[in-house]
Amino acid sequence: MNEVIETILNHRSIRRFEDKPLTDEQIKTIVSCAQAASTSSFIQAYSIIGVKDIVKKQKLAELAGNQEYVAKNGHFFVFCADLYRHTLIGKQEEKDVIPSLESTEKFMVALIDASLAAQNAAIAAESMGLGICYIGGLRNHLEEVKTILKTPERVIPLFGLAVGFPSKVSGKKPRLPFEHIYHEDEYEQSQDIYLEQLQQYDDAISSYYHERTNGKRQDRWTEQMANMLTKQSRMYMKEFVQKNKLNLR
Amino acid sequence: MNEVIETILNHRSIRRFEDKPLTDEQIKTIVSCAQAASTSSFIQAYSIIGVKDIVKKQKLAELAGNQEYVAKNGHFFVFCADLYRHTLIGKQEEKDVIPSLESTEKFMVALIDASLAAQNAAIAAESMGLGICYIGGLRNHLEEVKTILKTPERVIPLFGLAVGFPSKVSGKKPRLPFEHIYHEDEYEQSQDIYLEQLQQYDDAISSYYHERTNGKRQDRWTEQMANMLTKQSRMYMKEFVQKNKLNLR
Repeated sequence: MNEVIETILNHRSIRRFEDKPLTDEQIKTIVSCAQAASTSSFIQAYSIIGVKDIVKKQKLAELAGNQEYVAKNGHFFVFCADLYRHTLIGKQEEKDVIPSLESTEKFMVALIDASLAAQNAAIAAESMGLGICYIGGLRNHLEEVKTILKTPERVIPLFGLAVGFPSKVSGKKPRLPFEHIYHEDEYEQSQDIYLEQLQQYDDAISSYYHERTNGKRQDRWTEQMANMLTKQSRMYMKEFVQKNKLNLR
Repeated sequence: MNEVIETILNHRSIRRFEDKPLTDEQIKTIVSCAQAASTSSFIQAYSIIGVKDIVKKQKLAELAGNQEYVAKNGHFFVFCADLYRHTLIGKQEEKDVIPSLESTEKFMVALIDASLAAQNAAIAAESMGLGICYIGGLRNHLEEVKTILKTPERVIPLFGLAVGFPSKVSGKKPRLPFEHIYHEDEYEQSQDIYLEQLQQYDDAISSYYHERTNGKRQDRWTEQMANMLTKQSRMYMKEFVQKNKLNLR
């Protein structure tokens, strides 16, 4: 196993960091790695906002559901889907790019681009001995997040990435069985086998919690998912995204 | 610079591969690395389809705009946003998860999850000396792609990842200037500076093409983008995604 694969497989989310900021060089390396990722038709439809201002960080931490590590970390990045610069380019080149920019297709492209870049950033940070945690909680209140970060139209903050020197290392949760995630040649299959795999996975997750909590917890994954999905969270998103002139047509 | 950062910064898309399949072990390592990525609230909302069947690969290559390397490679992965298993889970646990699954928020979650996983797969493959190329061209004709891969409702094939032993290595295109992608504390800025950065970048891209083609090409990036975005491509996407019961509310 090489160093890269080792780094990738060793990933766990870190939620407690030392009070020690990243150096400018570390930030620059992480962003350069993000930028090295593939991008659809070279469109580069994302931006990264690094938040250092502690007042802004504290507000973001509150908005993300009082997640302390959004404020307390070595550096906080916000990854944004960004088609704003392409709006300017259209004006400058006197071409009508608006229908494209407002399409669901380009919304997807921007999300994919930003996510590929973010994962490069995450792996790069981990390879430097830093810990990371993705912060989807920013999507709880995007209107407020946009105000804090002053992002223009056609820019959607997607998630944060808290990075820092780990002060508490957490465990690695087992993932869905390989056969459940990976299909060969086609997806279609017996629903019975599919449900059986979920059952197997539920057992694995139950024992994982059982061991870690001395028997106090033993939730099943399907139960967690069903409960989480029963709560209708962030249902404002469609309207919000469309108000920002993306995913419209 | 460590081995991981070196691998990440050395990325370039490979479009010509040796006629040599990946081993099962290589495939398993790549998929395990994909699965090690972070996932929003542990939802794991993606699937990966590995295509070995040469007839299917050839059809996919045609659909992607006659991209030969979709058929000729060491292995072809298709990354899908997948909320199908969560539909089954809802039924099994007798919970109403449908409004959640149909939300724009969960559509975004599935896209982000699949992309984070894919980038781990890409980096893992590159660390093993393999080359990769993302294939967004699959989105040209998703109805046909779904038929070939037999994916159920609430599964959207997002892109392919062609992986293999490189037989021709291409150059690395310069990315947008660091200051253009990375903002500190807030996005807002002088539009003049923003346009100046684009001008700088246009110059860099022009010289890149000029050098590589002995002066035959010297397109600017903003020109490429304006031309690409003037063509309205994949405008069926919104309807298609909604027909597949995602991004509906």
